[in-house]
Amino acid sequence: MSRKIRMGMIGGGRGAFIGNVHRMAAALDGQIELVCGAFSSNAEKSKLSGDDLFLDESRVYGSYAEMIEKEKALPLGERMDFVSIVTPNHVHFGPAKMALENGFHVVCDKPLAFNLEEAEELERLVNETGLLFALTHNYTGYPMVKQAKMMIQNNEIGKVRKVIVEYPQGWLSTKLESTDQKQAAWRTDPSKSGIAGAMGDIGTHAENLAEYITGLKIDAICADISTLVDGRLLDDDGNVLLRFDNGARGILYASQISAGEENGLAIRIYGEKGGLEWHQMEPNTLLVKWLDKPSQNYRTGVGELYPETQAHTRIPAGHPEGYLEAFANIYRNFAMCVRAKLENKEVEKVYQDYPTVSDGVRGMKFIYKVIESGKADAKWIKM
Amino acid sequence: MSRKIRMGMIGGGRGAFIGNVHRMAAALDGQIELVCGAFSSNAEKSKLSGDDLFLDESRVYGSYAEMIEKEKALPLGERMDFVSIVTPNHVHFGPAKMALENGFHVVCDKPLAFNLEEAEELERLVNETGLLFALTHNYTGYPMVKQAKMMIQNNEIGKVRKVIVEYPQGWLSTKLESTDQKQAAWRTDPSKSGIAGAMGDIGTHAENLAEYITGLKIDAICADISTLVDGRLLDDDGNVLLRFDNGARGILYASQISAGEENGLAIRIYGEKGGLEWHQMEPNTLLVKWLDKPSQNYRTGVGELYPETQAHTRIPAGHPEGYLEAFANIYRNFAMCVRAKLENKEVEKVYQDYPTVSDGVRGMKFIYKVIESGKADAKWIKM
Amino acid sequence: MSRKIRMGMIGGGRGAFIGNVHRMAAALDGQIELVCGAFSSNAEKSKLSGDDLFLDESRVYGSYAEMIEKEKALPLGERMDFVSIVTPNHVHFGPAKMALENGFHVVCDKPLAFNLEEAEELERLVNETGLLFALTHNYTGYPMVKQAKMMIQNNEIGKVRKVIVEYPQGWLSTKLESTDQKQAAWRTDPSKSGIAGAMGDIGTHAENLAEYITGLKIDAICADISTLVDGRLLDDDGNVLLRFDNGARGILYASQISAGEENGLAIRIYGEKGGLEWHQMEPNTLLVKWLDKPSQNYRTGVGELYPETQAHTRIPAGHPEGYLEAFANIYRNFAMCVRAKLENKEVEKVYQDYPTVSDGVRGMKFIYKVIESGKADAKWIKM
Amino acid sequence: MSRKIRMGMIGGGRGAFIGNVHRMAAALDGQIELVCGAFSSNAEKSKLSGDDLFLDESRVYGSYAEMIEKEKALPLGERMDFVSIVTPNHVHFGPAKMALENGFHVVCDKPLAFNLEEAEELERLVNETGLLFALTHNYTGYPMVKQAKMMIQNNEIGKVRKVIVEYPQGWLSTKLESTDQKQAAWRTDPSKSGIAGAMGDIGTHAENLAEYITGLKIDAICADISTLVDGRLLDDDGNVLLRFDNGARGILYASQISAGEENGLAIRIYGEKGGLEWHQMEPNTLLVKWLDKPSQNYRTGVGELYPETQAHTRIPAGHPEGYLEAFANIYRNFAMCVRAKLENKEVEKVYQDYPTVSDGVRGMKFIYKVIESGKADAKWIKM
Repeated sequence: MSRKIRMGMIGGGRGAFIGNVHRMAAALDGQIELVCGAFSSNAEKSKLSGDDLFLDESRVYGSYAEMIEKEKALPLGERMDFVSIVTPNHVHFGPAKMALENGFHVVCDKPLAFNLEEAEELERLVNETGLLFALTHNYTGYPMVKQAKMMIQNNEIGKVRKVIVEYPQGWLSTKLESTDQKQAAWRTDPSKSGIAGAMGDIGTHAENLAEYITGLKIDAICADISTLVDGRLLDDDGNVLLRFDNGARGILYASQISAGEENGLAIRIYGEKGGLEWHQMEPNTLLVKWLDKPSQNYRTGVGELYPETQAHTRIPAGHPEGYLEAFANIYRNFAMCVRAKLENKEVEKVYQDYPTVSDGVRGMKFIYKVIESGKADAKWIKM
Repeated sequence: MSRKIRMGMIGGGRGAFIGNVHRMAAALDGQIELVCGAFSSNAEKSKLSGDDLFLDESRVYGSYAEMIEKEKALPLGERMDFVSIVTPNHVHFGPAKMALENGFHVVCDKPLAFNLEEAEELERLVNETGLLFALTHNYTGYPMVKQAKMMIQNNEIGKVRKVIVEYPQGWLSTKLESTDQKQAAWRTDPSKSGIAGAMGDIGTHAENLAEYITGLKIDAICADISTLVDGRLLDDDGNVLLRFDNGARGILYASQISAGEENGLAIRIYGEKGGLEWHQMEPNTLLVKWLDKPSQNYRTGVGELYPETQAHTRIPAGHPEGYLEAFANIYRNFAMCVRAKLENKEVEKVYQDYPTVSDGVRGMKFIYKVIESGKADAKWIKM
Repeated sequence: MSRKIRMGMIGGGRGAFIGNVHRMAAALDGQIELVCGAFSSNAEKSKLSGDDLFLDESRVYGSYAEMIEKEKALPLGERMDFVSIVTPNHVHFGPAKMALENGFHVVCDKPLAFNLEEAEELERLVNETGLLFALTHNYTGYPMVKQAKMMIQNNEIGKVRKVIVEYPQGWLSTKLESTDQKQAAWRTDPSKSGIAGAMGDIGTHAENLAEYITGLKIDAICADISTLVDGRLLDDDGNVLLRFDNGARGILYASQISAGEENGLAIRIYGEKGGLEWHQMEPNTLLVKWLDKPSQNYRTGVGELYPETQAHTRIPAGHPEGYLEAFANIYRNFAMCVRAKLENKEVEKVYQDYPTVSDGVRGMKFIYKVIESGKADAKWIKM
Repeated sequence: MSRKIRMGMIGGGRGAFIGNVHRMAAALDGQIELVCGAFSSNAEKSKLSGDDLFLDESRVYGSYAEMIEKEKALPLGERMDFVSIVTPNHVHFGPAKMALENGFHVVCDKPLAFNLEEAEELERLVNETGLLFALTHNYTGYPMVKQAKMMIQNNEIGKVRKVIVEYPQGWLSTKLESTDQKQAAWRTDPSKSGIAGAMGDIGTHAENLAEYITGLKIDAICADISTLVDGRLLDDDGNVLLRFDNGARGILYASQISAGEENGLAIRIYGEKGGLEWHQMEPNTLLVKWLDKPSQNYRTGVGELYPETQAHTRIPAGHPEGYLEAFANIYRNFAMCVRAKLENKEVEKVYQDYPTVSDGVRGMKFIYKVIESGKADAKWIKM
């Protein structure tokens, strides 16, 4: 089968942010081809976006329903192989469900859905259909995140005792949603975002990262959830105490009112023998700390890294890779798995690695529990 | 009065760590002269330490009680002007009380006392006698900590909304107290340290730093206090949610099992207009963040800093100052205030700046509240 | 003209490094489509690479000459619009010349050619044909490099007085060319690389970066050029004193035996009012220094940056962009200029920005002069 | 002999900068007592400084000659043991010569003298008298500088191939000497500073650091020496190519017009097996780089450091030490050696470590050679 995997996009028209990220991520490795899209619920807008992207007019649709129907009618190899859903949270469930029910694999932006029921329904559908479903918790796509995961899995730092995961941003320090800013508007609107603001938008990334790297599950949480900008409808800051299933303790915080912070996702993990520290804004370095020995700067491309790490880096040491490359890792792995399905082949284990619908359900549960704990004035709640 | 201020030391004999720190800090600026000491409760050991320090034999005592009595008998100007208490926590109260009752000013290591009752008794005595009392919460002695405090006081970053203060260390990642290590032994021994381990030893520094810089008071806390090394008798890790009296939210954590961390006290403060970040291990930089403007690296010695900052730095930009210089700032200010008392003069306001007995009482209350909240399984407790 | 710009690639078959970089860079923005290639001078190998890339068999050629001839025979809109040359230095001239002579635009890897004569011949051809020619001095594609350039152009740091540009690598610290390593082999082989090793491979990047950012020309150089690994045939380390045409002084060094360095291209520029510092390995930050004011951390996506900067960044602040994105900027700008040619339109000035054949000639001259000065035992030589 | 070593100071009165640095450095470890001084050639000013320092009036002198004469008349144990000379360059030779001729050990600020003849005369006198002479090239006092030296001495990074030593400052970016600034005035005045400006003031520190750490000697230099601020009488910027006696190549630069730089002394050294990097402004870290292994952050107080390193640090890991502590290491070692002389004892080898009069002669030669090479328009000159 000598062809690229074919993608149809839902959402991501002119003016959107994340749609273009998905397109660049999908394009980077030359494995995926954008063949169609329903870029906007406004057919005219959708058309304009299709032109921008040099798509055949006949493959630019006015709604996701139209796209799924019409594409299904095309022969395999011509029709899209999967959909990529890049709409706001409240428009994840509809297209995902319809795509799955019509035999299309799915890539979906996070959080998985508007509420827990939707999320669980999607998980059920994925299990039922056997279709592939990737959730773009893109931060786990970074090579040094893989390295950290493997070092813990191989007991290099000993049993994990403490985890600090943080995600400070500052862009909602003012009431930006009262201006024209589209990104701020839907993210702070309960009818589009769901029950959580910052905790849903970025808190779930932090939760996902911590569980992915440590291989542990958060067992209980105790949260202080706040809205610090007057008149905002959802939380913009949350501080959470964590207990993990192995007894480790932790802190998770997410904030969108940390003035002057950009996109400061970071994690520190301490085991009995050593510690790991990683910062998303300098993603090619993993700081490895030891009891009474000098710390080490693990770097992509330097020395003996795990095969899982090497499989997710493209260029030599000192040639920085960033956000788009990490995002592209998810698309590349997903495309390899789709291709394997189409060709009835196996994929090497290091590439069978992207966040799934189950990660999405877990993220939705996390959202529910922190909001519940926050309302209960910080009591411990089991996950 | 052309003479140095005269110091007598209690504790700090051979093998001690903090005693020598106090001596270096006191010596640095040429304002203070060590004239006598009771360096150990073992008279022979005390004598040996006196020899190391080139003290007159007659001024080296076998107990603090002996020292206070005999020094009191000497004429003013010959006798010590103040005592410096550098013993473990359970031996703070005795000498401090006796010194105050006999008319000596006091410098005391932190935490102030073994328990809250002792702490409050010392505060009462200080108020009653009008004597000066400095508590060596030395981290507030750093120039860029002064700068941060003044920037907030002058509303440069707007109303404070969030505070993250952290103090990770790794040196107690193993059961070091089972070896011969003296520092580990008393710090993990409830009969010497009091009801708290890490929270008392370093958590109080974090609390003090946060309140000093922000000018806010912690109003309520919700804590998860743990002992992660098997068989240890006191806490070695604590994670605390904070609410401040102006409504700001926060996190404080202190840990001595964060493997590979050295002495990582750090604070981040976010206001409505900007943020501040300071790391004790790189103390000459204050990172100042702004909403949608480039962040700035404030540095000791560069540009227009507050007089309070300038008064606490000794050398030009790019000549790093460290822990001992910050510690020395407390001694220098204290010595200036003692001199002013002796000479009936005024001290410039920028030098009337050292932690007091009241900071010590506050620290003890903090210890009590976090331990109480930890035992109550993380419920909000008012300070 | 609703279609992507069509690229044919010369070189870059299986096992090559830079070919894949060019392909990812070209693909990222969805403006360019790879339609054909002569990936190897071995037709069978070329075919295999074509399969990897999902190309139509009929468009995979066994030689660049075949490709240029056959593509020329295809109608416009179907045939390639430009060639991308990613072969070793000694195979730049042949395909570039033939492409230009047959009406194809060219992207070529650096250095421009094997020797100065070839370089000047290509410059002549470009001028004669009016075709577009981009040289992938990719490091000038970084957004913060644009910002630095514009700040100097707008006199923000005053007249430039001093420039330090450095490019340390460590990968040739051992005699790697004696192993099977292909990259090391051709780069240290005078018959493939030309008269210079490190100075050609990376020294020219440093020269190009310094002149691009400052807007100055290097007027004279005084060089110490060495081969520090026994038996190596070309230089692996060079230290060069610089004088610029405005009187500024400088240092340029390039090294491939700086053990432990990755790809440490960095530049520091000092003017009468301030300084700039940029590190390729942390490319999203530009450190801006001032006389007696705090330094500032300019960051992609934060605050008011020049339009030239903004035009070369794709994602918000704190989402790191890297080497491939900078490389892609060159391809994206080149593609926009090719499209404008095809459509007889104008391109906005901020996008008319990629290194040209003239930069390539200048780089070749630089190589000749530093080698000449090195042989003359460091005497000043005019550029 | 249970007493402190007694110091008399020459220079360093009110308004001076370096005098107070010397006093703090001497005081820090409680080994040295300031007993007398000729702080100014103006007797009244000297007296005021003596008062500031709580000195006995009878020991505050109006000239260095008076001090040396009168102190010599006092009995040993009461009189000063050594002089500390902290005057501008042109007033080093006179007091140093007289002190040596009268049996006093000497600490002298750098550079050693006003010209090479004076320097060689002092060296002759030191050899003749057998007195101790320390030159305060203070930057070699840092513990991680010792660590770097020992790592090279023990072949940890293999044979040294390349050295980059740099010392950028920005404080003379404007013509500060035209204002009242005392520090700028004498440093740019050939009648006080000697034949060199920046190269003498800070270039010699760079030279000393490079030779101290590597254990190599600079064999030849090729220099570009400039005055970039109009009307300045001495050099304010110098760039120098280096060749070392083992064949290693290098670059040294010193600049006082690097706008926005503070005191950026830094060194990078590359051997066959690895590299070392140290920055004076973050002095407690030594970055250790390896061929194809993660780099390591050696830190004062962490892990197994050389005894030479440990002997020059006073406080545990993570408690930053700075400029004054490094400076104090020179005084402490010098005092230990003086004490050993007085007591006819041996000093442990790790403490027999301070810059000597011979380092000073070497520094003067370096100044002469770089100025000569600069005037010869960058030709190679043997050291």
